[in-house]
Amino acid sequence: MKGVFGRYADVDLDKGIVRGYDVPDEWYREYLGGRGIGLRILLEELEGKEDPLGPNNILIFATGPLQGTGIAGAGRHAVVTKSPKTGSLSDSYAGGFWAHELATSGYDGIIIRGKAAKPVYLSLVNGKTEIHDASSLWGLQAGETEEILKRQYKGARVSSIGPAGENLVRFACIINDMSRAAGRPGFGAVMGSKNLKAIVVKGGQAKSFHDAEMLAEIRKKIVQELMGNPGIQEFGKWGSSAAVMGLNEEGILPTKNFQQGTFDDAEKIDGAGSRFKDILVGRDSCTGCPIRCKRLVKGNFMGRAIEEKYGGPEYETLAALGSNCLNADVLSITLANQLCNRYGLDTISAGVAIAFAMEASEKGLIEEKIKWGDPGAVVELVEKIAFREGIGNTLAEGIDKVAAKIGADFAMHIKGQELPMHDPRGKKALGLSYATTPRGAQHMEALHDDGAEGLGKYGTPEIGVYGPIDRMSWDKKPRFCKIHQDLASFANSVIACTYVGFETAMCSGYNPYPHFREALYAATGLEIGVPEMLLIGERNFNMLKLAAARQGYTRNDDGLPARLREPLPRGNSAHEAIPEDVLQAAIDEYYKLRGWDDYGPTDEKLAQLGMRDFIGLIERGDQ
Amino acid sequence: MKGVFGRYADVDLDKGIVRGYDVPDEWYREYLGGRGIGLRILLEELEGKEDPLGPNNILIFATGPLQGTGIAGAGRHAVVTKSPKTGSLSDSYAGGFWAHELATSGYDGIIIRGKAAKPVYLSLVNGKTEIHDASSLWGLQAGETEEILKRQYKGARVSSIGPAGENLVRFACIINDMSRAAGRPGFGAVMGSKNLKAIVVKGGQAKSFHDAEMLAEIRKKIVQELMGNPGIQEFGKWGSSAAVMGLNEEGILPTKNFQQGTFDDAEKIDGAGSRFKDILVGRDSCTGCPIRCKRLVKGNFMGRAIEEKYGGPEYETLAALGSNCLNADVLSITLANQLCNRYGLDTISAGVAIAFAMEASEKGLIEEKIKWGDPGAVVELVEKIAFREGIGNTLAEGIDKVAAKIGADFAMHIKGQELPMHDPRGKKALGLSYATTPRGAQHMEALHDDGAEGLGKYGTPEIGVYGPIDRMSWDKKPRFCKIHQDLASFANSVIACTYVGFETAMCSGYNPYPHFREALYAATGLEIGVPEMLLIGERNFNMLKLAAARQGYTRNDDGLPARLREPLPRGNSAHEAIPEDVLQAAIDEYYKLRGWDDYGPTDEKLAQLGMRDFIGLIERGDQ
Repeated sequence: MKGVFGRYADVDLDKGIVRGYDVPDEWYREYLGGRGIGLRILLEELEGKEDPLGPNNILIFATGPLQGTGIAGAGRHAVVTKSPKTGSLSDSYAGGFWAHELATSGYDGIIIRGKAAKPVYLSLVNGKTEIHDASSLWGLQAGETEEILKRQYKGARVSSIGPAGENLVRFACIINDMSRAAGRPGFGAVMGSKNLKAIVVKGGQAKSFHDAEMLAEIRKKIVQELMGNPGIQEFGKWGSSAAVMGLNEEGILPTKNFQQGTFDDAEKIDGAGSRFKDILVGRDSCTGCPIRCKRLVKGNFMGRAIEEKYGGPEYETLAALGSNCLNADVLSITLANQLCNRYGLDTISAGVAIAFAMEASEKGLIEEKIKWGDPGAVVELVEKIAFREGIGNTLAEGIDKVAAKIGADFAMHIKGQELPMHDPRGKKALGLSYATTPRGAQHMEALHDDGAEGLGKYGTPEIGVYGPIDRMSWDKKPRFCKIHQDLASFANSVIACTYVGFETAMCSGYNPYPHFREALYAATGLEIGVPEMLLIGERNFNMLKLAAARQGYTRNDDGLPARLREPLPRGNSAHEAIPEDVLQAAIDEYYKLRGWDDYGPTDEKLAQLGMRDFIGLIERGDQ
Repeated sequence: MKGVFGRYADVDLDKGIVRGYDVPDEWYREYLGGRGIGLRILLEELEGKEDPLGPNNILIFATGPLQGTGIAGAGRHAVVTKSPKTGSLSDSYAGGFWAHELATSGYDGIIIRGKAAKPVYLSLVNGKTEIHDASSLWGLQAGETEEILKRQYKGARVSSIGPAGENLVRFACIINDMSRAAGRPGFGAVMGSKNLKAIVVKGGQAKSFHDAEMLAEIRKKIVQELMGNPGIQEFGKWGSSAAVMGLNEEGILPTKNFQQGTFDDAEKIDGAGSRFKDILVGRDSCTGCPIRCKRLVKGNFMGRAIEEKYGGPEYETLAALGSNCLNADVLSITLANQLCNRYGLDTISAGVAIAFAMEASEKGLIEEKIKWGDPGAVVELVEKIAFREGIGNTLAEGIDKVAAKIGADFAMHIKGQELPMHDPRGKKALGLSYATTPRGAQHMEALHDDGAEGLGKYGTPEIGVYGPIDRMSWDKKPRFCKIHQDLASFANSVIACTYVGFETAMCSGYNPYPHFREALYAATGLEIGVPEMLLIGERNFNMLKLAAARQGYTRNDDGLPARLREPLPRGNSAHEAIPEDVLQAAIDEYYKLRGWDDYGPTDEKLAQLGMRDFIGLIERGDQ
C-alpha cells in the first residue's frame, strides 16, 4: 500500500538489537494506522498477563497514513501500550513536530520490547535505528533532555520522559517538543520502566504517495477552509484555554473535586481573561496547521520563572489545577503546568489527585493539611508527586488505590483513569462515553453534547447525526455516543487532531472528514467513504474492548463515580444528575447498538466487522 | 413514524372490496419506501409460484417518504410486482404529478390483488378508495382514458393502460400524465390482466412532518443548487434527448441491433440536432422540479399528427426506435414514441424488438420483410405490437421467446428484459450491472462509467468512490458497480429522480444526497447517514435478489448477450468487447463483495443486513 512504509522498527531492549517488523498490508487496509495498527500488533504480541510496568509490556509509537503528508491536523502521533492506570491497552496522542519526523523516518512506527539494563535512548536518524547509552541523561527533566539531544542531532525532534516517568508515577507522560504530552494513561512510567529515556527522530525519507499532486491540492484546500472559517480563527486566537468561561457558564466546570459546576473566580483563570492576557506572549502550532491554538506564556510565580519554551496551559489544565482545586491563581496553574511538562506528568490526573487530597485532608482521611485553593500547595504537590515525596508518593500510585485504602468515595476516576474536566451531568452523551470506554474516563473519545448543540438541527448528515441536540437530554444519546466514538476512533487511526476534526472544525461548520478521506485516497489509493470510515473506527474501538475483556473487564466495570449521581448545586446545570437506573438503561441501549454482550463484542459482531481472527479471544465467565 | 401515513390501500378486485393495510413502522425504518416497502410486502404476500399475468399476482403502487414534500426530484412513484418479462419481482418508476397526489391521498401506496370480473378503474379521492366500472373506457388509449377521467375528477391525476396493456403485451407500460411511463418490466400487462384500466388519485391529505420548517428550507436549498449549476441547467435545456451525439461520439450508441456503436445519421435524431429543433415547442417538468428536462414537440409524420400533449422522446427512445433500427427519421421516432405513450408500450423494448425483427428478416429467420432503417416500418410495428397483429403478436411475447423458437442468437436481452441504449462494451461497470441485476438489463440501476469519468479524480468521497474512472477499464469496477447499485437502490426507495440524483446532478458537481438525507430527517425524524443510506439501498437490492432466487434464478443466469463478446467495429470504442472469462472474473469479485453465493445472499449476509427474517427463503439446490 502507498502512503506507508509497511514496517515498524522493532527494538528489543533486553538484547539491545533492532529489527524490522513488517506489517501486513491487510492490517493497514483494515486498521489504517495509529490506534489501529498499535492495538493490532499488541493484541498479537501480548498475552494479557503482562505487568504494564514489567519488562514484558510492549510500547508502541505509531503514525498513520496522514502523517508525513503535511496535512493540517496530522502533526500528531500515537503511543499505544498497556496502561498502568487501567491495566489494559490504551492509547495516547501528542501534537507538535515529532510525528512528522517519525513518519518520514523510513518506519511507520516503533515497537519497543523488554527493558534495558541501564538507561538508554533511541535514535532513528537517516533511516537507521540505534540504541545509545543515556546514563548522563537519567534524572534530567524532559525539556533538558530534549535540548541536549537536539544539540547533538541537528534538525531532529525528541520525545522523552522526565523524573515522573523515571519514578514510575502512574500518570507520567511522554513529552515531545518541550510542551507536548502523550498524557493520561501513564505511558511515561512504561517508558521509565524500560529504562528508556528518550527517542530522537529525524526524517527525510519521503513516503511514496498514490497521487502526490492531488494530496498537495487537498492540503491547500484544508488550510483555506481553516483560515476562512471565523469560528476556527476565533478558536485559534484564544486556544482551548478560553473554554473556562464557557464551561463555567454552562455550569459544568469541574470545581472543588466535582462538588460544583461553577467557579466564582473562573474569569481569573480563563485564557481570554484579564490575568491570562498579562502572561500571553505568543502562539505556537503543529506541523502544517494554520490554527496556531497553542499558547506561549511568560511570567513568574513565587519567584520561579514561567518560561516561553515550556508552553502555556490548555483548558484541561486550567480547570484541573485551577477550579477543580479551587485555585484561582493563574500564575500558580501556569507554573504547575510547566512543571508537569518538565517532569513529564499528566496535568489532568495531577489536578484530580490534588483535589482528591484536598478533600481527603478536609475530611481528615489523610494526615497532611492541604487547603482548598492554596496556589502554593498546587505547585508543591506537583513536585511531590513527580519526585514521589511524602503524600506525593501515595498519590503517584493513583487515587483509585488511595481511595480504596482510606475508604473515600470521592475519588473521581473510571477504571483507574481520572476524570477530565467536563462534568458529565451537563453532557449526557459524554457521560455515557466516560462510562463505557475501555480506556476509562476519556474526553477525547467522542464529540461532546455541548459542541453538538452548535451543529444546530442539521447536525452532520454524512454520519447520520441530526439535531438539535440538547446537552441535558438522554434522548438519542446512546446512538450519538456510539457514532462519535467510532468517528473519533477513525480520527485516532489516521491520526487527525480533534481541533481540525470533530471537536472544533465540525462544530464551526467545516466538516473536514471529506477532505481527510480524499487525502487518504491521494496518499494511499484506499477508497474510504463514510461507511468504511466508521467501520475502521468501530473495528479499532472494538480492539480496545477486546483488550479490556482479556484483562477481565466486564460490563460491571462500566459506570460513573458515585458523586455524579448527586445533583449539581448551582449554575446553568443546577439539579442535573445521572441516576444509576437512567445510566444503566443508556448503557443497555449502547451495548445493543454496539453488538456487545456483558463481556464485549459477540462472535457475530466480530464477523460482521471483518474481525473473525479475534473470535475466541474473550473468555466468557459463564461458558 | 412521521412523513408517512403508515398504511396502504389494499384493494381486492376479486371481491371488490378495499381494506387498509397497516405497514409496520419497522418496515419503514428498514426499507423506507418505494422499492423497499413494495418488495417487502410482496415477499410476504406472494409465494413465488404465481403467474405474473395470473389473478394471484399482486400489483403495488408505492410512494416513499420524500413524496408529498414537494422536494425536487421526488415527483415520482414506484410500481412493484412480478414481471411478465423476468418472471420475478421487479420495479418501475414514473415521473410527473401522479406521485404527489398519491402521497397526499391518506395512503402511502396501493396494493392490488385478484382480478376484476369486468373492466374497472380505481379512485383514491378525498381519502376514499373506490372501485368503479370501466367498461366504457376499455379499448381506449391511455391519454384518452386520462382525459375522460380528469373531466370527471377535477384536479385529479390518472395512471392508466392503453391497448397494449389490455392485450397483455409483455412490455406494456402504465402511463400517467399523458406522457410518463412506468416502463420496462411489462407492468401494463399486469394491470391489464387484472382488468384494471386506470387509477385516479387526488390528494389533499397532508402528511405530518418531523420538522416542516426545516423541510421547507431544504426544498429551497435544492432548487437553488439545481438552478445555480451550469451543468444541470444545460441538461435541462436539451433534456436526455441530446445524449444521442454524446453516446455516438463515445462509440456506444446502440446501432443496428448492437452491431455497431456509431450511427452515421446520429445528428439527425439528436435532441439538440437541427431536425429536432424544428419540432421542439417547449419543456415540461415533474412536481417541484426546476430542471424541466421533459420535451414538448409538435409536427407530423406521414400525415399523422405529433401532438404536444403526448410528450417528446427521451434519449432511450431516440436510440431504440432510431439508431438501433438504423432509423434516421426523427419524425418517425417521435410519432412512434407518442404511439407508445398512447397505447402504453415500452419504447426501449419496442425498439429492441423491432431491431431484432429487422435482423431476423434480413437473415431469413422470419417470413416478414422488414427493412433496416425503414421509418414507416418502425411506426407500423409499434402499432402491430400494441394490437398484437401479425408479427407484432409474436414480438409482443418478448424477443427471448421468439429467439428461442427461431434459433436466433442476436436477441439483445438479459433475463428476458431487452437491453437499454448503452452498449456495455464501452461502459464496463454498467455491463456488470446489466449482467447481475435481478431485474435484467437495467440502465437505471447504477451510475454509468462515462458519467463517473466526469467526477474526476475526487470522485464521490462520501460513498468512497474515487477517480479517475476510465469507462473502458475493468479496474475497481465490481466495487464501483456494487456501491452505485446500492445508492440507486436507496434512490428508488426514497424515491428520487436520477437526474436530480446520481446521474446528472452528481456528475455536474452537485451531490444532492446530503440534502435528501436532511430532507428525510426533516420529514420523518429518521437519522440516516451515508452508512444507513447504503445499507437501506443494499437491503432493498438484496430483496430483489431473494425474489429472483425464489423463482429459481442462480448465478448461471447472470451474464450478457453473446453479441457483446464481439468487438465493436468502429468509433471511439472500437475493438472493445466483453470476453466471457473477463466478465466471469468480475462477477466473481462482485458476488464476493455482495456476500452472495451462487444462489444469493448467504445467511450470514442476511444477518449482517438485519434481514434475519429472510433466512431460509432461498432453497439451495445442493443442500
